[in-house]
Amino acid sequence: MKYTIAVIPGDGIGPEVTNQAKKALDAVAEVYDHIFLYKEVQMGACAIDKTGVPLPEETIKVCKEADAILFGAVGDPRFDNDPTAKIRPEQGLLQLRQELDLFCNVRPVKAYHHLLKNSPLKKEIISGTDVAIFRELSGGIYFGRKELSKDGKVAFDGCQYSVDEIIRIAHLAFKAAQNRKKKLTLIDKANVLETSRLWRKTVAEVAKDYKDVDLNFMFVDNATMQIVLNPKQFDVVLTENLFGDIISDVACVIGGSIGMLASSSIGKENALFEPIHGSYPQAKGKDIANPLASILSASLLLEHLGLQDEADAIQRAVEKSLDLGITTKDLRSKNQTFTTTSKVGDFIADYI
Amino acid sequence: MKYTIAVIPGDGIGPEVTNQAKKALDAVAEVYDHIFLYKEVQMGACAIDKTGVPLPEETIKVCKEADAILFGAVGDPRFDNDPTAKIRPEQGLLQLRQELDLFCNVRPVKAYHHLLKNSPLKKEIISGTDVAIFRELSGGIYFGRKELSKDGKVAFDGCQYSVDEIIRIAHLAFKAAQNRKKKLTLIDKANVLETSRLWRKTVAEVAKDYKDVDLNFMFVDNATMQIVLNPKQFDVVLTENLFGDIISDVACVIGGSIGMLASSSIGKENALFEPIHGSYPQAKGKDIANPLASILSASLLLEHLGLQDEADAIQRAVEKSLDLGITTKDLRSKNQTFTTTSKVGDFIADYI
Ligand SMILES: CC(C)[C@H](C(=O)O)[C@@H](O)C(=O)O
Ligand SMILES: CC(C)[C@H](C(=O)O)[C@@H](O)C(=O)O
Repeated sequence: MKYTIAVIPGDGIGPEVTNQAKKALDAVAEVYDHIFLYKEVQMGACAIDKTGVPLPEETIKVCKEADAILFGAVGDPRFDNDPTAKIRPEQGLLQLRQELDLFCNVRPVKAYHHLLKNSPLKKEIISGTDVAIFRELSGGIYFGRKELSKDGKVAFDGCQYSVDEIIRIAHLAFKAAQNRKKKLTLIDKANVLETSRLWRKTVAEVAKDYKDVDLNFMFVDNATMQIVLNPKQFDVVLTENLFGDIISDVACVIGGSIGMLASSSIGKENALFEPIHGSYPQAKGKDIANPLASILSASLLLEHLGLQDEADAIQRAVEKSLDLGITTKDLRSKNQTFTTTSKVGDFIADYI
Repeated sequence: MKYTIAVIPGDGIGPEVTNQAKKALDAVAEVYDHIFLYKEVQMGACAIDKTGVPLPEETIKVCKEADAILFGAVGDPRFDNDPTAKIRPEQGLLQLRQELDLFCNVRPVKAYHHLLKNSPLKKEIISGTDVAIFRELSGGIYFGRKELSKDGKVAFDGCQYSVDEIIRIAHLAFKAAQNRKKKLTLIDKANVLETSRLWRKTVAEVAKDYKDVDLNFMFVDNATMQIVLNPKQFDVVLTENLFGDIISDVACVIGGSIGMLASSSIGKENALFEPIHGSYPQAKGKDIANPLASILSASLLLEHLGLQDEADAIQRAVEKSLDLGITTKDLRSKNQTFTTTSKVGDFIADYI
């Protein structure tokens, strides 16, 4: 079969890790006899430099038409440390999420056997963890009204949610729970926020359609602690945009490295796959960044296209690279050798 | 000397832990020849049950006039799981923070030698950690406009910050940093939020008065992960209300137990001291809750009154109880015995 894949390398280490994911996809294409047609487009700081905007029209068009989108990372310290910058790399990603209505971000968090020792958490705490975090991605304070008063002395961010926005992701999360351990935890701050109370009420309503799933609620402050204290208590976690951003980063410590976590962002018509790690500008161009999260994003992409065997082939290759310790420095355990970004990519491709 | 202390036991385990803190204060009074005059007032679910409101006028009045406030906890599952409740226990605490303008919440996070084994984190990660979290407590999304549309289908929370609100807590945080390791990390989400950009800009301005303090910035998603990955990189952490709520709960895992963390909430005229843990309703009345966070709150209270020796005496007693393992079940290590809430309180008082 022939598939068009929009590729957005982005900033920092984005291009180098995305290249390794493409190697893995190429290997899959060869073995399983597919054609993957890559259309590379710009987003982020690199797009600002070239076109003046973080998300050129061309990028939106190509992404809309593609069968799936493979994305690296955006972000650049030049903009982070300039609070007055009006145009910023991240706007590109946020705008893309909105243009394509990518409302559901799923982040699978697993403890990899070979990486247990890499986690700051004790082995007995994390071993066996398997959580799927469902983060609402196109609403909330990310997309609310933002204002700075004329005199620059008062800033404002609005956070809004509608019942419909909550319902659509709640259904996806409950369906996922049905295929897993049948437990769903809604994370909110319902003791303080009106939006959280709407989430709680709405999700409790949706739950009536999924009587086999056990629904419980947790405040975000406690939940962020609980995911570190006892991650095994969670199965499917559902939450709004900002809380999901924070919790899924914390959950990274379970996987042993943020360099291992991939995510899918699903809309009605489009889907985007990306590593959770950011653009990691300090490592840019050094061939030291861990490409596994990007490679695992490619695996999620294949799954989304219905190519389960192909997705599994990538997963197996990743497990093998962990087995053999053919990994970048961040995953190395004491005295073990490590290798480069591109060599990890080569190994994965060869193994497939 | 004679001091008036407003005591708000509150809900759940609030009353029983606060009682132990009072025992410690009574012991201090005896040894150091002070008089502590307690004025007990209501707040939270218990106040709703008795008076219909979570924060009666009488409570505000007594708190305003007291030399310091000792607070337990508020919260009750009857309200948490009813998203339509118009009156809630937490409103009492939020309103009190606002009435007394308690804008600066400080949460010291330390790894206690005897509790290293209790943390889900590996010993080498946490040992030696000493962080002070400065959380803005009277602004942000907690106190912004809240709205639910007439048809109940759209909810809204507004988050607002002014330069003045940021400046006053920034000065306190920088001053604290000067007396510590001279490092301040501002935690925000400046790549997305307008309020965060105002924080970044304003704090960078304030930093000019504290040239000896090293200022750096971190996004909240990354920061929440970093505090677990490598807590020792932090000295003073400064952040806005909601992020501070989340981060300080996560930081609890460093102390080995949320039952060990105390906090001060400082305003221009008043100061309140409370354990970080909540009302823990499951444990209410069972004499099993860990009273040490409340006892340590009493120590912070004494420090605030300028009674440093007295504060140290409580600290030493707490260390001793950890030494001897005279603690509640949550702090117990394998096969060790444990004791009750009130026995821990008795031991601390005796030791003082
Ligand atoms: C880059 C940033 C805007 C983004 C977010 O906050 O959503 C990132 O942290 C993520 O989680 O994808
Ligand atoms: C009880 C609740 C409103 C409160 C908060 O969110 O501030 C609590 O979690 C805290 O941290 O003191």
